[in-house]
Amino acid sequence: MSDFKDQLAKCASKVDAVLDRLLREQNEDPEARLMEAMRYATLSGGKRIRPFMVVAGSGLFNVAESSALRVAAAIEMVHSYSLVHDDLPAMDDDDMRRGRPTCHMEFDEATAILAGDALLTGAFEVLADDETHADATVRSELVLSLAHAAGAAGMVGGQMLDLLAEENSLKMAEITRLQRMKTGELIGFSCEAGAILGKAPQTSRHALHAYAHDLGLAFQITDDLLDVEGDASEVGKAVGKDADAGKETFVSLMGVERAHGQAQMLADQAAQHLEIFDERAKPLIELAQFVVKRRA
Amino acid sequence: MSDFKDQLAKCASKVDAVLDRLLREQNEDPEARLMEAMRYATLSGGKRIRPFMVVAGSGLFNVAESSALRVAAAIEMVHSYSLVHDDLPAMDDDDMRRGRPTCHMEFDEATAILAGDALLTGAFEVLADDETHADATVRSELVLSLAHAAGAAGMVGGQMLDLLAEENSLKMAEITRLQRMKTGELIGFSCEAGAILGKAPQTSRHALHAYAHDLGLAFQITDDLLDVEGDASEVGKAVGKDADAGKETFVSLMGVERAHGQAQMLADQAAQHLEIFDERAKPLIELAQFVVKRRA
Repeated sequence: MSDFKDQLAKCASKVDAVLDRLLREQNEDPEARLMEAMRYATLSGGKRIRPFMVVAGSGLFNVAESSALRVAAAIEMVHSYSLVHDDLPAMDDDDMRRGRPTCHMEFDEATAILAGDALLTGAFEVLADDETHADATVRSELVLSLAHAAGAAGMVGGQMLDLLAEENSLKMAEITRLQRMKTGELIGFSCEAGAILGKAPQTSRHALHAYAHDLGLAFQITDDLLDVEGDASEVGKAVGKDADAGKETFVSLMGVERAHGQAQMLADQAAQHLEIFDERAKPLIELAQFVVKRRA
Repeated sequence: MSDFKDQLAKCASKVDAVLDRLLREQNEDPEARLMEAMRYATLSGGKRIRPFMVVAGSGLFNVAESSALRVAAAIEMVHSYSLVHDDLPAMDDDDMRRGRPTCHMEFDEATAILAGDALLTGAFEVLADDETHADATVRSELVLSLAHAAGAAGMVGGQMLDLLAEENSLKMAEITRLQRMKTGELIGFSCEAGAILGKAPQTSRHALHAYAHDLGLAFQITDDLLDVEGDASEVGKAVGKDADAGKETFVSLMGVERAHGQAQMLADQAAQHLEIFDERAKPLIELAQFVVKRRA
């Protein structure tokens, strides 16, 4: 596992370097404050699990690392924007994120809203740039897939369901659907991006799609477990929020013990979808185990 | 002028029909509320000046109307998202827009933030779809140009400058730069989109770029004049806000009379850039006059 953590850290530092270049500091312009907030929200030392998925998936199809890292950076920009907006007072109203004040606490609400907007917009600019891939068909497909995963039918729609969930008690099927939209779709795009970049055949795409589906659920169940069992200083944000809000989660519906079993079963199942690939699938297989064993 | 108003209205109803199809009602899903807010924000009877620019610009290069209308719809989604976010309490805090309650007043802040996010994301999904254009190079360029116009270096950056402007007294050059970013870049993309769709030569692109530059400023000066001279019921939103906020505008810096003259001069100059085109440029030439003569 420590070998895998080294790999993950190495990938994180590479994607951070790309993000650092893409989000250039602007010391002289009056809009420097906007870029500062964008950098604050993005370059905050996350584990970069989604970028790792892109890079590991790209490794299956001989994709240039520079292409994979740009797509990874774009996905991390979208992920960061979604955290900034979800943390806003009108949404989940969180003060802490990754062990630091959230963006609107460090800056102000208006700046946080705009920084999120600019990160989302910037992600599409990165994908559509020919530095990401020489073939415009690939670039268009990346944009289309990311927009679908992140929009009303995906991440944003899932967040809407999540806000409404505080009023309605959800059943297992509804929580599964909510989480598939809110976090699963972007994880799905992260896992499939390498196949898009490498123009991989449909069988490969389907295998990665199935992997991402199971891994996404395992990821979310583990998140719910950390909210119950985790320590705020380790997790980097408030814990126990779902229970306090009276929100049903995977854990509230199936109990802690069954949730652990379910997460592990899904991680194993995720790995099995990758059996069609050679040993280059090892990082993704290890990722599945890491996702359910993490403590933060 | 009444002929032109008919053309504008006809174009608006066509783009509204496309938006209505793209933003499909979802009566059964729990996320119906999100789509309802997206439709409320977008299908609200605006004049659709930016869509008209796309359609009129496309008319110069034999672009299929279905392509032009999809790009026009995407731009209107971005424009609508920007209004929804700008109207939020943390931003300009506006209650009325186009004669109706703003999105966060009609729904709530969280829904308004998410509806804006989903509209922005959806715009890129529309552009990257091969229904918009068969050539992926064109689709990628549309995405890249819109993202550049709408992001930190364009519209969002301009809104950031505008928020900071309430604290600092801006000079003419700074206001010009702010407005070029906040409204000019998206107007620029609207005017150039037809040339991208029609793979027009650089000389045509440059002419449209120059037209958009002058028209954008004329548009903004007229907006500032309407804030001073307009009637709230006619304009559809609160007037006198800039003066109340102690914000410098084109009108506060040059006075009402000079502002009228400047707007007219810019509109005439905008039209002159189109002399390289044939009679198909007439709608854009008439638009320039309309922009400075409008009462709302």
